[in-house]
Amino acid sequence: MSTTTYPLAAREGANDRESTLEIAGRRIGGGAFATIAGPCTVETRDQTLSTADAMLEAGVQFFRGGAYKPRSSPYSFQGLGPEGLEILREAKQRTGLPIVTELTDVRDVEAVAAVADVIQVGARNMQNYPLLAEIGRSGVATLIKRGLAATLDELLMAAEYVLAEGNPNVILCERGIRTFENATRFTLDVAAVPVLKERTHLPIVVDPSHAAGRRELVLPLSMAAAAAGADGIIVETHPTPETALCDGPQQLHAATFADYLRQVEAAAALAGRVPAPEATTV
Amino acid sequence: MSTTTYPLAAREGANDRESTLEIAGRRIGGGAFATIAGPCTVETRDQTLSTADAMLEAGVQFFRGGAYKPRSSPYSFQGLGPEGLEILREAKQRTGLPIVTELTDVRDVEAVAAVADVIQVGARNMQNYPLLAEIGRSGVATLIKRGLAATLDELLMAAEYVLAEGNPNVILCERGIRTFENATRFTLDVAAVPVLKERTHLPIVVDPSHAAGRRELVLPLSMAAAAAGADGIIVETHPTPETALCDGPQQLHAATFADYLRQVEAAAALAGRVPAPEATTV
Amino acid sequence: MSTTTYPLAAREGANDRESTLEIAGRRIGGGAFATIAGPCTVETRDQTLSTADAMLEAGVQFFRGGAYKPRSSPYSFQGLGPEGLEILREAKQRTGLPIVTELTDVRDVEAVAAVADVIQVGARNMQNYPLLAEIGRSGVATLIKRGLAATLDELLMAAEYVLAEGNPNVILCERGIRTFENATRFTLDVAAVPVLKERTHLPIVVDPSHAAGRRELVLPLSMAAAAAGADGIIVETHPTPETALCDGPQQLHAATFADYLRQVEAAAALAGRVPAPEATTV
Amino acid sequence: MSTTTYPLAAREGANDRESTLEIAGRRIGGGAFATIAGPCTVETRDQTLSTADAMLEAGVQFFRGGAYKPRSSPYSFQGLGPEGLEILREAKQRTGLPIVTELTDVRDVEAVAAVADVIQVGARNMQNYPLLAEIGRSGVATLIKRGLAATLDELLMAAEYVLAEGNPNVILCERGIRTFENATRFTLDVAAVPVLKERTHLPIVVDPSHAAGRRELVLPLSMAAAAAGADGIIVETHPTPETALCDGPQQLHAATFADYLRQVEAAAALAGRVPAPEATTV
Repeated sequence: MSTTTYPLAAREGANDRESTLEIAGRRIGGGAFATIAGPCTVETRDQTLSTADAMLEAGVQFFRGGAYKPRSSPYSFQGLGPEGLEILREAKQRTGLPIVTELTDVRDVEAVAAVADVIQVGARNMQNYPLLAEIGRSGVATLIKRGLAATLDELLMAAEYVLAEGNPNVILCERGIRTFENATRFTLDVAAVPVLKERTHLPIVVDPSHAAGRRELVLPLSMAAAAAGADGIIVETHPTPETALCDGPQQLHAATFADYLRQVEAAAALAGRVPAPEATTV
Repeated sequence: MSTTTYPLAAREGANDRESTLEIAGRRIGGGAFATIAGPCTVETRDQTLSTADAMLEAGVQFFRGGAYKPRSSPYSFQGLGPEGLEILREAKQRTGLPIVTELTDVRDVEAVAAVADVIQVGARNMQNYPLLAEIGRSGVATLIKRGLAATLDELLMAAEYVLAEGNPNVILCERGIRTFENATRFTLDVAAVPVLKERTHLPIVVDPSHAAGRRELVLPLSMAAAAAGADGIIVETHPTPETALCDGPQQLHAATFADYLRQVEAAAALAGRVPAPEATTV
Repeated sequence: MSTTTYPLAAREGANDRESTLEIAGRRIGGGAFATIAGPCTVETRDQTLSTADAMLEAGVQFFRGGAYKPRSSPYSFQGLGPEGLEILREAKQRTGLPIVTELTDVRDVEAVAAVADVIQVGARNMQNYPLLAEIGRSGVATLIKRGLAATLDELLMAAEYVLAEGNPNVILCERGIRTFENATRFTLDVAAVPVLKERTHLPIVVDPSHAAGRRELVLPLSMAAAAAGADGIIVETHPTPETALCDGPQQLHAATFADYLRQVEAAAALAGRVPAPEATTV
Repeated sequence: MSTTTYPLAAREGANDRESTLEIAGRRIGGGAFATIAGPCTVETRDQTLSTADAMLEAGVQFFRGGAYKPRSSPYSFQGLGPEGLEILREAKQRTGLPIVTELTDVRDVEAVAAVADVIQVGARNMQNYPLLAEIGRSGVATLIKRGLAATLDELLMAAEYVLAEGNPNVILCERGIRTFENATRFTLDVAAVPVLKERTHLPIVVDPSHAAGRRELVLPLSMAAAAAGADGIIVETHPTPETALCDGPQQLHAATFADYLRQVEAAAALAGRVPAPEATTV
């Protein structure tokens, strides 16, 4: 597909080099490797703040947690909503870590934008164009996850919906596609990293947690992503995954997260990507 | 997956029989076969009204046309919006055919509900849960298309989001899934029809146009769907497909639609489904 | 893909019309609809002969049964081998029905060719080129099943391996592809029928049994295939499927096979295909 | 799936540890990382020997090259056959590198076994059970590539066909599966590496060349595979890929192969795998 279908996202429209985004004092892309970590879901104040403390200690760049959760069943827990956003705000004040959190309803964009440094668009909403356009207009940075059956060009066109509104801060996320293989929850398409690098200047992160579906696989998938040249990872962690309300089996133990992160950063270094020091001026 | 995850959609929750929905005087399900036809997109008043006239003449049960079009690229034509809805309203007044039209933005639900007899949820929005819940609350019937990578159980859980709001008028639609085979635009999963019949009491229609991507394949796919027991089809037609603004190659010529329809209805009859006469009282 | 990659299989190389194959006095293609039915596996003389009697009575054109069974596990029952071929020979003598049976090892081609009127190539062997070429040289008709991940062009190139050896009697078989959906054993790609009709003059049959994986789905899938224009079906049946050594859940009861077949033939008739009377001279 | 379906391949049947295979003086598995490299196809004596020299110089453990090539079209170049085997024998004598080469016809097993140190089974033949059993009986080590639509358990059951004949030297190979995404030739399922590590004691290598389809992607995919814990890679290289008879676009330039290999070995080292020194006794 010609890159003229996504002129703003296309690499050739950016003097053929990777963009470095600076978001709330952190950098991602252009050699800067960023780790986005936190619980799948904001469950309680304690769970969230203790995880945020552990992430600060481990040295991540962004803290993630879901206040609004899209769930396949209407009868599943859908997140704490505004109360969850308040807890995230407290986590940010306490740790200084910028917040990545998901938006699922276009009518919540203002509430989420008031807390989020990066608004996450989940795989189910990758082609929710009104949502993308509204995020574009909000001016808040966004992380767009690839849909389960989306081609890489469709992901880039989703990004274009945000960019076309004048918002340049878009991060792309590979999180696994749906295939016949059910040994993993989804099939991580690690080749998406170098292919996207050819086509776009935007930073690319990988979500190993959702692809794996089991924490035993999160480290090897993270290593693979980092060694393949990803600009970062977005990964789930919890103080006690066994009691998590959502996706417990795939969340890493917060207590051992630092060990995990050092290994992933070593793999990223092989691909020429290192965590950037925090900017002194924001 | 246990049907307890979609108790309202489950067939076993309906005394193990198919539901017949009555919508604007037309019936679908429980032996009543319904054809939903019209252009992909409302382009002009003339194109829309002439197609509606041809559909009335051909004997379809519902008229379809898109005023809001979700498009992969932000630079593609996105539909006429409110002006398109007005044209659809005129088509309904003129022909008496109930209208099926797509909703893409939860904020447009009132405007669309004012014209639509059936609100269509496209494949890209099958897991847009706020949209589904709002349609549930609107009380307007809905037709939900299966997502490109959605399992049949996920489709049923999407329906459950509408049903759980007290709205029983949900039609499911198989429209092809994404696979490795690119001889067709998508792979029509015709087995979805009998499998859904086992799992749910809701009517099931098939969209041969999007699966095929080429009009030459629309008749055989329609025959297959009808012979497999579908409760209806939703199909695209245009007075001059060569000049269509969207999906021209897959739209049937309106002038020969009646011939097409007689063949499909013959196949439906083999599976025990016949078009219901219009109800005398609405 | 240009049809120059399969010049002998291509429709445009055949004056743009369907071929009618005449095999052991039966016709398939060019309007002649053929049913190939019998047990998955030749288990015993009694089971095989009683099924063959039932198939003769029901009015099928070919009798099928496996003497050599490719199985995913080396520890599963692999068929009766030569003893199974002897039982098939007896079934042919008794009923006059031509035999369709699978070849899995190129070294068995002579033994199988001595009994088979049509040598079946299973999905796992669709790209076993030495096997295809040897069948081509044997001069015996063949039925080639599409591989689980094979494109339609790859299927046509597999056929070309047989045709290139001077053997024109090739039947293609759609039997479902592997996708993410696991509500069925495989996803029947019913569009393969009209697409192959465009590309090749060779007859196309559909195997609903393996796609379905459950007998409840075999009738609707057979109806779909026939209504879409297939030249025949190949279907599994057993006197007592509950006790079958292989694929019991998907085998139809032989006792009710005639009812099933009448419905499928009615669907085929809608697509202009009827069973041909047996040729008076073979 | 219970590992009782592949008791010999199962990890739990091996005291829960990885096996180290020793083949012609080289080691693979259990911490020993092996690189298998060479041209897709043996085209000429010069092309093959010059590549073998470059591979020896670069420090690979095995030399690969195809004398028998399975090709989708019967009209494509099918390899040099016996003449190709002779060239491989000369390459082995000259460099001392053990030979990995493909077997496609069960009737060629003796001829191939006379030259090969490792017999390769291609993706198309993963479920060619007579071929697997014959390789098992030959006693020659084998490398089995995963089929395009094969689950990991099916790959393990294919390995079991060899192991069940008393041949313990089986290497598994992930080489990409077929999905909807066509930005790459196939979708490399990098998670196959850690999943197979859980299920089997057999060594696992990755083929980045066929998954990628383009040499630009071979390095990042190799890095990903190595960092994820693969026991080796099998990769294509050619002195002048532009003139290659087969798969030119995906073959690495032999002249820069050493640079490539150092990076991949660094990634393997992060996962605790290093090239083993050549055994002093063969």
